[in-house]
Amino acid sequence: MHDPIDETTLEQDSISQTNRKTVKSLEAALNKTFPVLDKGFVRVIDYMGNDEAIVQAARVSYGKGTKSLNHDEGLIRYLMRHRHTTPFEMCEIKLHIKAPIFVARQWLRHRTANVNEISARYSVLNEEYYVPNIEEICKQSKSNKQGRADIIESSTASTIKSGIENTCADIFNKYHDFIQNHNLTRELARIILPVSAYTEFYWKIDLHNLMHFLFLRAGHGAQKEIRDYAFAILELVKEWVPLTYKAFMDYRMNCIEFSGNELEKLASCLNKDKVMQLVSEEGVKGEAKEFLDKLSKLVQK
Amino acid sequence: MHDPIDETTLEQDSISQTNRKTVKSLEAALNKTFPVLDKGFVRVIDYMGNDEAIVQAARVSYGKGTKSLNHDEGLIRYLMRHRHTTPFEMCEIKLHIKAPIFVARQWLRHRTANVNEISARYSVLNEEYYVPNIEEICKQSKSNKQGRADIIESSTASTIKSGIENTCADIFNKYHDFIQNHNLTRELARIILPVSAYTEFYWKIDLHNLMHFLFLRAGHGAQKEIRDYAFAILELVKEWVPLTYKAFMDYRMNCIEFSGNELEKLASCLNKDKVMQLVSEEGVKGEAKEFLDKLSKLVQK
Amino acid sequence: MHDPIDETTLEQDSISQTNRKTVKSLEAALNKTFPVLDKGFVRVIDYMGNDEAIVQAARVSYGKGTKSLNHDEGLIRYLMRHRHTTPFEMCEIKLHIKAPIFVARQWLRHRTANVNEISARYSVLNEEYYVPNIEEICKQSKSNKQGRADIIESSTASTIKSGIENTCADIFNKYHDFIQNHNLTRELARIILPVSAYTEFYWKIDLHNLMHFLFLRAGHGAQKEIRDYAFAILELVKEWVPLTYKAFMDYRMNCIEFSGNELEKLASCLNKDKVMQLVSEEGVKGEAKEFLDKLSKLVQK
Amino acid sequence: MHDPIDETTLEQDSISQTNRKTVKSLEAALNKTFPVLDKGFVRVIDYMGNDEAIVQAARVSYGKGTKSLNHDEGLIRYLMRHRHTTPFEMCEIKLHIKAPIFVARQWLRHRTANVNEISARYSVLNEEYYVPNIEEICKQSKSNKQGRADIIESSTASTIKSGIENTCADIFNKYHDFIQNHNLTRELARIILPVSAYTEFYWKIDLHNLMHFLFLRAGHGAQKEIRDYAFAILELVKEWVPLTYKAFMDYRMNCIEFSGNELEKLASCLNKDKVMQLVSEEGVKGEAKEFLDKLSKLVQK
Repeated sequence: MHDPIDETTLEQDSISQTNRKTVKSLEAALNKTFPVLDKGFVRVIDYMGNDEAIVQAARVSYGKGTKSLNHDEGLIRYLMRHRHTTPFEMCEIKLHIKAPIFVARQWLRHRTANVNEISARYSVLNEEYYVPNIEEICKQSKSNKQGRADIIESSTASTIKSGIENTCADIFNKYHDFIQNHNLTRELARIILPVSAYTEFYWKIDLHNLMHFLFLRAGHGAQKEIRDYAFAILELVKEWVPLTYKAFMDYRMNCIEFSGNELEKLASCLNKDKVMQLVSEEGVKGEAKEFLDKLSKLVQK
Repeated sequence: MHDPIDETTLEQDSISQTNRKTVKSLEAALNKTFPVLDKGFVRVIDYMGNDEAIVQAARVSYGKGTKSLNHDEGLIRYLMRHRHTTPFEMCEIKLHIKAPIFVARQWLRHRTANVNEISARYSVLNEEYYVPNIEEICKQSKSNKQGRADIIESSTASTIKSGIENTCADIFNKYHDFIQNHNLTRELARIILPVSAYTEFYWKIDLHNLMHFLFLRAGHGAQKEIRDYAFAILELVKEWVPLTYKAFMDYRMNCIEFSGNELEKLASCLNKDKVMQLVSEEGVKGEAKEFLDKLSKLVQK
Repeated sequence: MHDPIDETTLEQDSISQTNRKTVKSLEAALNKTFPVLDKGFVRVIDYMGNDEAIVQAARVSYGKGTKSLNHDEGLIRYLMRHRHTTPFEMCEIKLHIKAPIFVARQWLRHRTANVNEISARYSVLNEEYYVPNIEEICKQSKSNKQGRADIIESSTASTIKSGIENTCADIFNKYHDFIQNHNLTRELARIILPVSAYTEFYWKIDLHNLMHFLFLRAGHGAQKEIRDYAFAILELVKEWVPLTYKAFMDYRMNCIEFSGNELEKLASCLNKDKVMQLVSEEGVKGEAKEFLDKLSKLVQK
Repeated sequence: MHDPIDETTLEQDSISQTNRKTVKSLEAALNKTFPVLDKGFVRVIDYMGNDEAIVQAARVSYGKGTKSLNHDEGLIRYLMRHRHTTPFEMCEIKLHIKAPIFVARQWLRHRTANVNEISARYSVLNEEYYVPNIEEICKQSKSNKQGRADIIESSTASTIKSGIENTCADIFNKYHDFIQNHNLTRELARIILPVSAYTEFYWKIDLHNLMHFLFLRAGHGAQKEIRDYAFAILELVKEWVPLTYKAFMDYRMNCIEFSGNELEKLASCLNKDKVMQLVSEEGVKGEAKEFLDKLSKLVQK
């Protein structure tokens, strides 16, 4: 995990004793801010559960039926593979996020979560806005309507960067002028603020829905800026629930899906002798057996 | 219902025959745009169900148990009064909304709805931003941290209004410059856009959750700009489900709640003789009886 | 809080140190089973947050705007009164419930929660079913289609009780016969089991949605059996978040709502002189002021 | 689509004119009951939207960015492939379901839907319970803890079938005795009823969540009885949104996922020359290009 900016926590909780499940390495990260983008961060406020809590909940559902999967890792991989998602909902995390408004807008489309965001009706926002690094200033992609292409050459990129900075500085000047010199109500003064302005929010979500968020927001289709947040959170998930993290990377982030149509084409690329040899192996069980079943299905296409 | 701006619909659907429940007056409003704020609108794209569909669903739950409430209006009032909310979920409406981003941000906090919003990663946004009318340009309230107080005197208000217009025009100039002259990727060019810029989205929600939205967003605590949208939608609800609308206004919008503590104080203001006389009336049933039960409870405080 | 049945916990967690917010009296209750009905229970598995966490989240939203409400209790009452519900979502609790299937069916209608229930496809259910006490065996209410009236006289009630016991014992005999003697698949053998059979589930929910559940399920319209669970959980909420509990009892459980129509009738019962005297008081603030505003509104009806 | 049991509708709606999008073949199915299991059914009560409505909503999001995908089918396949799920949420269907309680219990675990179920507190349930056909009466599977193995030989199966029938008939006798002879409150009389008893509910859900339900409940892991309902609903989806149905079958029902680990093993089975030949093809676009990208990735493992 990369280093937090500041060892002093924003809010120092005293250490207490608890009967709840705890995770040492996440306890160490608690209340520290992990920097993202130029002025943003991710900070863990609280958490509930760990890998063991997922196993515990699964055993409620399956009862004696889970005896054969007596290792936690095997059971967690089984749950992930078969999309038995409810045990993962038994873990919960509460994060403090500081991110530009345009990132927060993508973020809060995810509906199954709890949110408390700073309100610019109640408070004057700090003069903080996102300015991309030179190497992030790219051309519009032609093939991907929603994406970026090559870097813009550096003198133009500098002009653009200054353009962003000056525009946003001007806006914040006007904003402060409205509030300080004209006593304009905050809820109207803020309407000129740019979507690059930083906002902050508490975000509480269960592990299943968090993984769904990470799958989409760390994925290639997501905008670079929100991906940076997703990567920072992935690091925290790795500390929190290492077995689940590993299964998630294998079964979700690194998996490839082939549609019915594609499977036929894929089948035509197979070395069928090799497949038949594998498939005819005996005594294979569990995950390895499930793979051979897929191969058999494929070779029959 | 106030007049739509434009009788020509944005997308002309031909008239079809259907076996589904229909609402004549809402059919007439379909696909028309009802203006809100300076450039926004509300437009009904589709709907499912009507007052009768609520009654139909309630009768599934209660079966023969609802015989005594044989009038639709009585049953709908009963459901509203006792917070039997699920039958109201059996109606659904799909709206097309055009609103400033800061309004959309408040709007989309409501999580139990379906949303498709225009993406400024895919498309260049039109140069349209909200500018409040002079009579909306108010001072910050002191007592209400999130609200407005008196109108700012008119020459200052004009200065503020021009300030908003000029700032936003400058921003859009820069935005177009980034895109047209520098081929900057749209997803970065848009980060300087103000939260007053208009966005558009399709919003689909069931009637129960819509009423919850309207209760909060037409209420006094909400910002004037989103209240205007809530009022426009209330007009549509009135056309769509008139019996439910009436019950909603009576039991939600116009109701007053007294807490346990407040009930004691309220009791001390009662003319107890008058109450006792009312309460002792015989043969009172249904809603009227429930009111007398509340009075009895109150007078005993 | 009534005593748990068993001081030995079903699963002994060792005590750890944590930087998270903790609640001493809830820690003491952790993993203990609190009996409900004849064979059911409620057990706290884990929790996140406390009263202070609600205040902390609210202060993120309101920023400096909350300075005037500098006492936690005042802020919590303010949030509850104005239905600012999101800060309450920042607390979470995970319970282990053992309840009859017909109770679980009412329970799991509440959709905003996470659930892992024992599956009778995986496991053979224990021979445990709910049998009501004699004094719970009541006649059908005539006025309330969904409720009970007076107790049935004791010899008939005994007959009914035995009827329930014998029927359920017979069913479980048949169930075991199907499984043990005929090796019938569990997922079919269980279809004859009665809805009085006990099931178990883990249930994780945020505090706002929990209070909504308790409001409905501890209310007069709910069936006696699920109310017993709601009351047991209320006791736990009282230990967990005492300030929130108090505000919830005052503003939700003990409040009375008057509809627009009813307010007119209520106004006619007021001693207007007394009201005018109260309303004319000066220097009243906050909650007390809001009460006077309601009175003014009422007296003008 | 298999034939409905009864051409006469349970509730005859007169034909109206509408400006809404309609689907002729689904209109024809409206209000008819399609039988499932021995006494259950699926019935369409209402619907909103069609394939075109999905495209319409997607075009709001992508604006001019979707010009290149100018055929509806191509766009729908694109949305399905890239898990752009929100446009599918813009369609909604309302079904009337009659199913055994144990099926309803699995069904209502799906939380993102609206439900009105008959209440056995309000109404006396009809004497109707599910009895499996002889050829469904199977042994417990050893490998699959939650599934069935081979059919039980026919004389034993007959004994089991009679056992189910007699047990349920006895229970309903006792139930009626409690109610008719002892005036026992319905909410207690029903606690002895078996989970094979039929219940009825209205179920309203958006198309995205419906497809998620169908993916899980038509899948191999689901119990045979709920799969029968899923298959019946799949037929209705095929009539309602034929393009979406086709894409769903290809990309979800008939797809195979390979985990990161499995992809390495799969790569070792490939005929690499054949793959290289395919991958080097030029001018390939869209879906076909995405397949070649997957192949390239695979061959590099």
